[in-house]
Amino acid sequence: MSQLVKFNSVSKSNVSNVDFNNIPFGKIFTDHMFVADYFDGQWCNFEICPVHKLEIHPGNLAWHYGQSIFEGMKASITKDRVPLLFRPEMHAKRLNFSARRMCMPEFPEDIFINAVHTLVNLEQNWIPPQKGSALYIRPFMIAMDEAIGVRASDTYKFIIFTMPVGPYYSKPVNLYAQDQYVRAVVGGVGEAKTAGNYAASLYPANIAKKEGYDQVMWLDGIHKKYVQEVGTMNIFFVINDEVITPNLDGAILSGITRDSVLKILKDQGNKIIERQISIDEIMEAGKNGQLKEVFGTGTAAVIAQVDKIKYKDQIVQLDPANWKYSTMLKNYINDLREGSVEDTYGWTVPARNAFNVTKQL
Amino acid sequence: MSQLVKFNSVSKSNVSNVDFNNIPFGKIFTDHMFVADYFDGQWCNFEICPVHKLEIHPGNLAWHYGQSIFEGMKASITKDRVPLLFRPEMHAKRLNFSARRMCMPEFPEDIFINAVHTLVNLEQNWIPPQKGSALYIRPFMIAMDEAIGVRASDTYKFIIFTMPVGPYYSKPVNLYAQDQYVRAVVGGVGEAKTAGNYAASLYPANIAKKEGYDQVMWLDGIHKKYVQEVGTMNIFFVINDEVITPNLDGAILSGITRDSVLKILKDQGNKIIERQISIDEIMEAGKNGQLKEVFGTGTAAVIAQVDKIKYKDQIVQLDPANWKYSTMLKNYINDLREGSVEDTYGWTVPARNAFNVTKQL
Repeated sequence: MSQLVKFNSVSKSNVSNVDFNNIPFGKIFTDHMFVADYFDGQWCNFEICPVHKLEIHPGNLAWHYGQSIFEGMKASITKDRVPLLFRPEMHAKRLNFSARRMCMPEFPEDIFINAVHTLVNLEQNWIPPQKGSALYIRPFMIAMDEAIGVRASDTYKFIIFTMPVGPYYSKPVNLYAQDQYVRAVVGGVGEAKTAGNYAASLYPANIAKKEGYDQVMWLDGIHKKYVQEVGTMNIFFVINDEVITPNLDGAILSGITRDSVLKILKDQGNKIIERQISIDEIMEAGKNGQLKEVFGTGTAAVIAQVDKIKYKDQIVQLDPANWKYSTMLKNYINDLREGSVEDTYGWTVPARNAFNVTKQL
Repeated sequence: MSQLVKFNSVSKSNVSNVDFNNIPFGKIFTDHMFVADYFDGQWCNFEICPVHKLEIHPGNLAWHYGQSIFEGMKASITKDRVPLLFRPEMHAKRLNFSARRMCMPEFPEDIFINAVHTLVNLEQNWIPPQKGSALYIRPFMIAMDEAIGVRASDTYKFIIFTMPVGPYYSKPVNLYAQDQYVRAVVGGVGEAKTAGNYAASLYPANIAKKEGYDQVMWLDGIHKKYVQEVGTMNIFFVINDEVITPNLDGAILSGITRDSVLKILKDQGNKIIERQISIDEIMEAGKNGQLKEVFGTGTAAVIAQVDKIKYKDQIVQLDPANWKYSTMLKNYINDLREGSVEDTYGWTVPARNAFNVTKQL
């Protein structure tokens, strides 16, 4: 494998210029990125190189017709400075799921995984050791044809870059249930991790923000009634002693943290139900005291407790102070990521120099 | 105005290298483009310059979260070589409608219009004189922040480039009514001309193509029953002596050719109805002989007659040979564009050198 991947190192790392105690989210890029090109029906030009600007034609098809997919992953570092990935194979699979829906070529899963390994291994000095901090990993694929006309591109670029990030939410979030604007509908592209879904979310997110809410709670596109997701997270409700999360209906993104949470809760013998759940049921449970916990799950936030939900003229206020499920999950997943608890699932894996690149620093 | 716009000419036009009788759609760019930048809350750096590649950071927000909108316009040329625009002010308005929905800054409509005028005037030698050919104009706006995190960008680029194009459809099209995959849903971004809508259409378009159909007939996202659009066109049905087109419900793009067609038909005293129309009603009317004409309208195709519709296991076959509405409309709009008929609507306007740039050719 290694001979296929070109390595072009920075001459001097920029890591010493970064204050890891004060990282603006999503603005600091590490030294290197992984790049590959697709043309003539195959992936080629695999390279790890300094993060640099690309020469892009204004007719770039990704800009005009939106063929663009991505993943979000996080690497952490143990106390002994071992860089750890979390379920990278799930992200490789999901990227290809998105690719198929958006008529884009699949990216070889072994190369995806090895590229993430090598890049994180190479950039391990960039992983903030602070609790809740991490190295955010952004694999993405974009159409590269330089032409106008609605069709799938013949050429693509696949890139992975990484960035140190601090904790996503420092306190519980409040949610605005949106029954006018929708994120996605069954038959659309809601289950693909594609750029357009996020663009569609901005306007309703602004409405929520203006009213003082952190995130939108998305309702289904057909009935505007069943809860789908929250901002960029999946959502869980504890009603009495049942943990409920919306079933994947084709419009909901299949979150990898969602999957991990389901597995952990099941293994601990909890009652888990994946089903349609209406906003009315949630507001009712909130009012009569049966709604014990609400939390979002996602790569960026990991677990985000919810302390308030607004729907029409109703508000449910919650107090996460002594919540057991979400607190346990947050601590457990963070402990797994930090390597401070035994990983019986085999979800974490030390980032290795899979392409055998030689640092020139 | 003119002193605000920098002009950087090509040293030699590429127009003589193009065979106007054989133009691949969307692949030939003219010499110049118009560019503007948005930062610190305002548009600036207005420039007409040679079409060139841009230096783009891999963290470009348009790629990751899909803030990208565009317009499609066409300029034609009269027998006396006067370049004509068609309703440019409508495109300026619609771009800003899309901008508001996608949380992007509006672009000043007077500068939009003057930029289109100046660019088309400058590139008038690129307008193919052949019937049905035109200069396609692509104004678009993309997010330019170099950061990760779902939010509206603070910086943007607005670009207009142009390209000579031949006729879009040379023969009638056939349609595949899609009741599984949807283009848009009320509450989503279907009425905005944004990249993600087109990306979402590719997969179902491929299904249609595999079955031998040119375009998808989109049904509404809620009931999968009411007709919305066709491929990238609005759609009209003539049933008995009534012309019916789906009413703009919030998920349908408000086409400018659609608007022109409605005005022309009304002025000629025809019975026009904008209303919900179900695919069942259309198939039924097709079977009992009441479906007299079906045609799509759009900037690219202008008027495209439909000779076949498939829905589930039913097929309606039509013969456009003697259709009066669509034939009249196609001829009339093309005559308007070519300046060969009096423009009582004031829709066409000669492209003028609004920025007073001086050709250096």
